[in-house]
Amino acid sequence: MDDRAVTACVLIIGNEILSGRTQDINLNHIALTLGGWGIQVREARVVPDIESAIVDAVNYARETYDYVFTTGGIGPTHDDITADCIAEAFGVPIVINETIADLIRQRPAPPDVMASRMRMARVPEGAQLVDNATGGPPGFRVDNVYVMAGIPGVMQAMLASLEGKLESGPIVRTRSVTAFLGESQIAGALREIQDQYPSVDLGSYPFFKQDRYGTSLVMRGTDEGLLDEMLEAVKQAIVANGETPQDVQHG
Amino acid sequence: MDDRAVTACVLIIGNEILSGRTQDINLNHIALTLGGWGIQVREARVVPDIESAIVDAVNYARETYDYVFTTGGIGPTHDDITADCIAEAFGVPIVINETIADLIRQRPAPPDVMASRMRMARVPEGAQLVDNATGGPPGFRVDNVYVMAGIPGVMQAMLASLEGKLESGPIVRTRSVTAFLGESQIAGALREIQDQYPSVDLGSYPFFKQDRYGTSLVMRGTDEGLLDEMLEAVKQAIVANGETPQDVQHG
Repeated sequence: MDDRAVTACVLIIGNEILSGRTQDINLNHIALTLGGWGIQVREARVVPDIESAIVDAVNYARETYDYVFTTGGIGPTHDDITADCIAEAFGVPIVINETIADLIRQRPAPPDVMASRMRMARVPEGAQLVDNATGGPPGFRVDNVYVMAGIPGVMQAMLASLEGKLESGPIVRTRSVTAFLGESQIAGALREIQDQYPSVDLGSYPFFKQDRYGTSLVMRGTDEGLLDEMLEAVKQAIVANGETPQDVQHG
Repeated sequence: MDDRAVTACVLIIGNEILSGRTQDINLNHIALTLGGWGIQVREARVVPDIESAIVDAVNYARETYDYVFTTGGIGPTHDDITADCIAEAFGVPIVINETIADLIRQRPAPPDVMASRMRMARVPEGAQLVDNATGGPPGFRVDNVYVMAGIPGVMQAMLASLEGKLESGPIVRTRSVTAFLGESQIAGALREIQDQYPSVDLGSYPFFKQDRYGTSLVMRGTDEGLLDEMLEAVKQAIVANGETPQDVQHG
């Protein structure tokens, strides 16, 4: 761990997200998990099941960020084209991974079913495997691109297997506080505080609950001392507006 | 309405989505709503609150798709930079919209609070307003880019106001059926069916429920006759594998 931020891009692959059939929950889990490991998700893209779209997104992301994590498209059916797209992006052939093939052969099946399952043993040449504790075929990585399943439980198992194996940077810590103040009431003070602490990101998120408007103030940064100072300044701004700081959290 | 597909890109703007603090639900709502209007969401990006990132994404999206819908970053605080970024993307100045300004002035407030609220009257020159039935300041559009709030209830009201006002293409209809078959058991048949109906998108999504593995087959296309034919073929493939087609849906 050094002072340089380690960054990631998430690529959610799948027509079912773009059609609205499925509500994605993978980005949120990946962002929280990587954040806890000192890796900052800086961008995410939802990409359709179209080879050129996936290849372009992978090549952009792997050249722009330290890590790329993809979800979706690694099953046994015709619409699972992620492995082929990763191979295309890296300009390498697809090969049969014998470790995966052996795993698949352990469960007997008729020849046509086995042939379909064997699609999941196809990986780009040079790929390393990503463990899958749920018992199904593993994911894989090529260089800085980690290819995971789309099913949340399987993706989560694959991601968990990477803990401690990735490069990490400073962990982004948070402070948050809420107040029953409209954003506009406190906007001037927030701008001044943000200007005073340019290295800490100060976000303002309005909410409506208990029949009242309120605002959540969220501070994100890597320096705990600066975070505490900024939190104090925000709390004072809330008090100066006649309200009480509530629900203070350190994360 | 003609036969040409009308396409859209969704840009989710906000650090809170990328940090994992907030689970996005706007993309799903926008995709379903636009789909019902004959507009196909082809891509989505989650972009941080960084001017260059937003400007680049807007310019890419508006040149690539018929419509662009953004969510987030149009409030009164320092981290709300979407209007400025849209102006930058189009190379036009920011102006005060007098309709919004009048709306804001109707609610009295101390001068500093009013000044912050007035940030929400700042729009790119030439922008048209997007109604906000929740009573707050409206969104806006410039050319083919529609700029909406990030709060789901407000975004939904803004999007609803656009019904009937957008160009539309053929509506993508769906057929779906499930079976307690593993994907691999039916993968061969699905591939043949997909090859037979190249203009209909056949998606295969595994699930696990009632302690059994199953697969949802989802067909998406604009020709109802072809959809019905494909559904019949998929049902026959399920029966040929000794299972019963279940939960048939027409959408």
